[in-house]
Amino acid sequence: MEQRISMTTLVVPDVAEARRFFESGLGWQLNAAPSPDVAFYQVPGGVFALYRRDSLAGEIGRDVTEAPTGAVTLAWNARSEEEVDATFSEALAAGAKAVKQPEKAFWGGYSSYVEVPGGHLLEIAYNPFWTVENDGSVTLPVPG
Amino acid sequence: MEQRISMTTLVVPDVAEARRFFESGLGWQLNAAPSPDVAFYQVPGGVFALYRRDSLAGEIGRDVTEAPTGAVTLAWNARSEEEVDATFSEALAAGAKAVKQPEKAFWGGYSSYVEVPGGHLLEIAYNPFWTVENDGSVTLPVPG
Repeated sequence: MEQRISMTTLVVPDVAEARRFFESGLGWQLNAAPSPDVAFYQVPGGVFALYRRDSLAGEIGRDVTEAPTGAVTLAWNARSEEEVDATFSEALAAGAKAVKQPEKAFWGGYSSYVEVPGGHLLEIAYNPFWTVENDGSVTLPVPG
Repeated sequence: MEQRISMTTLVVPDVAEARRFFESGLGWQLNAAPSPDVAFYQVPGGVFALYRRDSLAGEIGRDVTEAPTGAVTLAWNARSEEEVDATFSEALAAGAKAVKQPEKAFWGGYSSYVEVPGGHLLEIAYNPFWTVENDGSVTLPVPG
């Protein structure tokens, strides 16, 4: 499993409020918001995202309740569906717990979730719309 | 505030157990473990870290209890102490809540914490031992 984190996602109760903070407050440039539930920002090496808590709970079939430090998910992006399957198996062999088996995702990709030490959720996914560069970084398509 | 995340840190009850997962299980290369409480890994664009939960609780003066998705902190690394002060103020003006005022940190840097929407902890810090490149990515010193 290549040493990288493709995306760090803040799980938030209200994506619009969080977008105002990062965009109007800090001046960050949105890359894409395919729905009101999600927002993506290009950062060096990968992607920073916001995702609505109830949407995550529905996606993984697990309650995501309020936590003192908020909820976050990490993603590791593969270069193919086959690499998702192989990496999911590798993670389980290393001691991760299966949360969601690899399957076609509603957003057009292929996604799985595992739980790693500390109870953290790691999505292992292939996104056909994003590019994983040779150095492992992820580049988002430029909008517009 | 430049659009970047310098470090994503998994807060874990047992750093040694988590290190075994990432290093022995997944084959990731440790960059540095300045104490048994913390471990750093270079990833594209920045740093992935493990940090002991009780150590974080002590550092920020806030209880960090078990959460269904684990606890994570994000860090934004400045290029100077003055930039920490300015960025801390900018974050507060944008609506973040102060958790820890900027001050000299025990590890030799200068650090502050704010809470951003969703209850997430964002450290805004200057680390004199790490390099923030022109593109905002962070490069760790090569060990050895």
